[in-house]
Amino acid sequence: MKKKKILIAQGGGPTMVINKSLVGIIEEAKKNNYDILGSKNGVNGIINSKFVELTKISKEKLFLVENSPGAALGSTRDKPDKNYCKKILEVLFKKKINTFFYIGGNDSSDSLRIISEANPDIQCVHVPKTIDNDLVLNDHTPGFGSAAKYVASVFAGINLDINSLPGVYLGVIMGRHAGFLTAASSLLKKKITDGPHLIYLPESNFSLDNFLSDVDNIFIKKQKCIIAVSEGIKFSNGQLVGEKISKLNEQDAHGNIQLSGSSVLGDYLSNQIKIKLGIKRVRADTLGYAQRSFLGCVSEVDQREAKKLGKESVKFSKQYDSSFSICIKERGRNLNTYSFEIGQNKLIDIGGKTKYMPDYFINRKKNYVSNSFFKYALPLIGKKFPDFGNLI
Amino acid sequence: MKKKKILIAQGGGPTMVINKSLVGIIEEAKKNNYDILGSKNGVNGIINSKFVELTKISKEKLFLVENSPGAALGSTRDKPDKNYCKKILEVLFKKKINTFFYIGGNDSSDSLRIISEANPDIQCVHVPKTIDNDLVLNDHTPGFGSAAKYVASVFAGINLDINSLPGVYLGVIMGRHAGFLTAASSLLKKKITDGPHLIYLPESNFSLDNFLSDVDNIFIKKQKCIIAVSEGIKFSNGQLVGEKISKLNEQDAHGNIQLSGSSVLGDYLSNQIKIKLGIKRVRADTLGYAQRSFLGCVSEVDQREAKKLGKESVKFSKQYDSSFSICIKERGRNLNTYSFEIGQNKLIDIGGKTKYMPDYFINRKKNYVSNSFFKYALPLIGKKFPDFGNLI
Repeated sequence: MKKKKILIAQGGGPTMVINKSLVGIIEEAKKNNYDILGSKNGVNGIINSKFVELTKISKEKLFLVENSPGAALGSTRDKPDKNYCKKILEVLFKKKINTFFYIGGNDSSDSLRIISEANPDIQCVHVPKTIDNDLVLNDHTPGFGSAAKYVASVFAGINLDINSLPGVYLGVIMGRHAGFLTAASSLLKKKITDGPHLIYLPESNFSLDNFLSDVDNIFIKKQKCIIAVSEGIKFSNGQLVGEKISKLNEQDAHGNIQLSGSSVLGDYLSNQIKIKLGIKRVRADTLGYAQRSFLGCVSEVDQREAKKLGKESVKFSKQYDSSFSICIKERGRNLNTYSFEIGQNKLIDIGGKTKYMPDYFINRKKNYVSNSFFKYALPLIGKKFPDFGNLI
Repeated sequence: MKKKKILIAQGGGPTMVINKSLVGIIEEAKKNNYDILGSKNGVNGIINSKFVELTKISKEKLFLVENSPGAALGSTRDKPDKNYCKKILEVLFKKKINTFFYIGGNDSSDSLRIISEANPDIQCVHVPKTIDNDLVLNDHTPGFGSAAKYVASVFAGINLDINSLPGVYLGVIMGRHAGFLTAASSLLKKKITDGPHLIYLPESNFSLDNFLSDVDNIFIKKQKCIIAVSEGIKFSNGQLVGEKISKLNEQDAHGNIQLSGSSVLGDYLSNQIKIKLGIKRVRADTLGYAQRSFLGCVSEVDQREAKKLGKESVKFSKQYDSSFSICIKERGRNLNTYSFEIGQNKLIDIGGKTKYMPDYFINRKKNYVSNSFFKYALPLIGKKFPDFGNLI
């Protein structure tokens, strides 16, 4: 019997554990004595014939790789159309690939759908990753737990910092469509009085008046206020708040002082707090790439699951001939115990779709998370945290 | 003999190890059977009679506190003038304080100088802390090593991220006057080709033309460029680059779209790269409060030294009657072995002064650090890092 030959690629924004899934696939494929090829920079490396031989890669190298943030094979933002996918198929045939494993978000799974629909003879396997946690039919996705741990650790530290020097702190968090990562800012709170005190999500309509009134209420009571804001907050007409501010700013600006950078939202909201509420000490941070790539802040649960999903995707690919997306099955509303069960979805059910925070993860006032969210997300960030306290 | 009574306070921006120094003082004072009082929010708590009784504090509580970022007693930005110091003195007398320990930066040490000059009978002891590492006559200051580890860990992760998805990344780092923390972005590089590729410090005059030309050169060669920029970079006339941009922007802006936030510098420089060099994928992050408060990223060397400095400040205070600032003695240019020696300085020699990066820590082109800087700073961030690697 001819040896099976597989191709692995990584697509979209890297995460802290995307290489765990990669190494999971490689280790399981090695057990099965497959020929293993990697593509550099996702699908882009396929059409440009940039491959990495992975069949004989050493255990030592794999150990280094699996503990590294970033995509070890390189990634891509290419979103293949039908023609692009045709080229991919040609190369896969030429290279005699039996199964193509693509680790990525919903764009990557959609590319696989197009390829597998064009020719069902090549098996396409999608292994999910995204810090946004916004894949439908997945309880959660590898990458989220570690990013959530990073965000929670930032806010746990900020809480102690603002406790020392009171004022208003506003942190803008990644997530254009879904608020899971922003909500995670709350996960390391020890006391009800700890920050963050307010959380604004893309799932709820944003009103500047309500926002300022919320901040004012908290600040009057506590002389401090810690706020987590998603970069994806929207007005009731669906327009991104950050986008509207950038546009207004560009219209107003002359010469080459055009500030439409990533930090505009945080700077705008903190200026509004200063001007409208007359609070002097206001600081805004826009949490950056470190959310997905910080070296040394990783959830051991996320790592374990990411690797397991890689391994299981190889096992499932032996059992099924058709293409699929591997997943962590949804717990639904039964959040009292944490369960980790692996299943599969059809590619067509995943690609190009977005999962949002359900209503029952958000409080009634739409400015904080619910207890259900804590139950849902807390197990995902692991248990390796320093405990902390203060004297005032 | 009457029991000795001491007062402890924390001032200025918190660090990840400022509580190590606090607990070092408390533990050593307990050994000596002192009465120990803490002041809430630095000198502000003294004049407002907000004190915390610390003599009988439990070991368990101290353990929690010493591992927490933030100032456990609270901090202050108050910079006392002579009248303020007079009030402080009155309270210290009323409370029968023999020695006042103030953990803080050069502002705090200057407050102590004023107090001790007004009445030499009360011994004032300054215990240094600052993430900026800018205290003269100190080899380095507690707080810097952990902040440096955080910044180095961000850039190590960014390097792997930008390796996956090439482009330009620019990170703006804290430090208004001294570039030590910005320079630390380089400390976890494994290969010469790893980022950061360019580092801009407050110690060297900034030229936008030279900056763009540097970025262009790197990007043409590598198709990527990772840049670390200090928030304190200045033009040759001494004006802060960030300040100039904020002012231009405020003049240009109408209505309430006045963006003068903390992120203006990074957004401006990344826009310049996009516009003038025509590079599409450019991302700027302004590293925020997490640099001084992130929970769970701390240098074990920094922790040990911060605690030791607290303990030694109590021992020194028994040997000397006069006021002083405890310090880690300067290594000078002999950087081949790391030495940690404790000494003391006069308050007048520390307060209100700033230490800058010496010339021999900066390269000839003023766009990177020298090997001497690596030798100087690498021991300070400790050794607890995950190793990392990739496949391309």
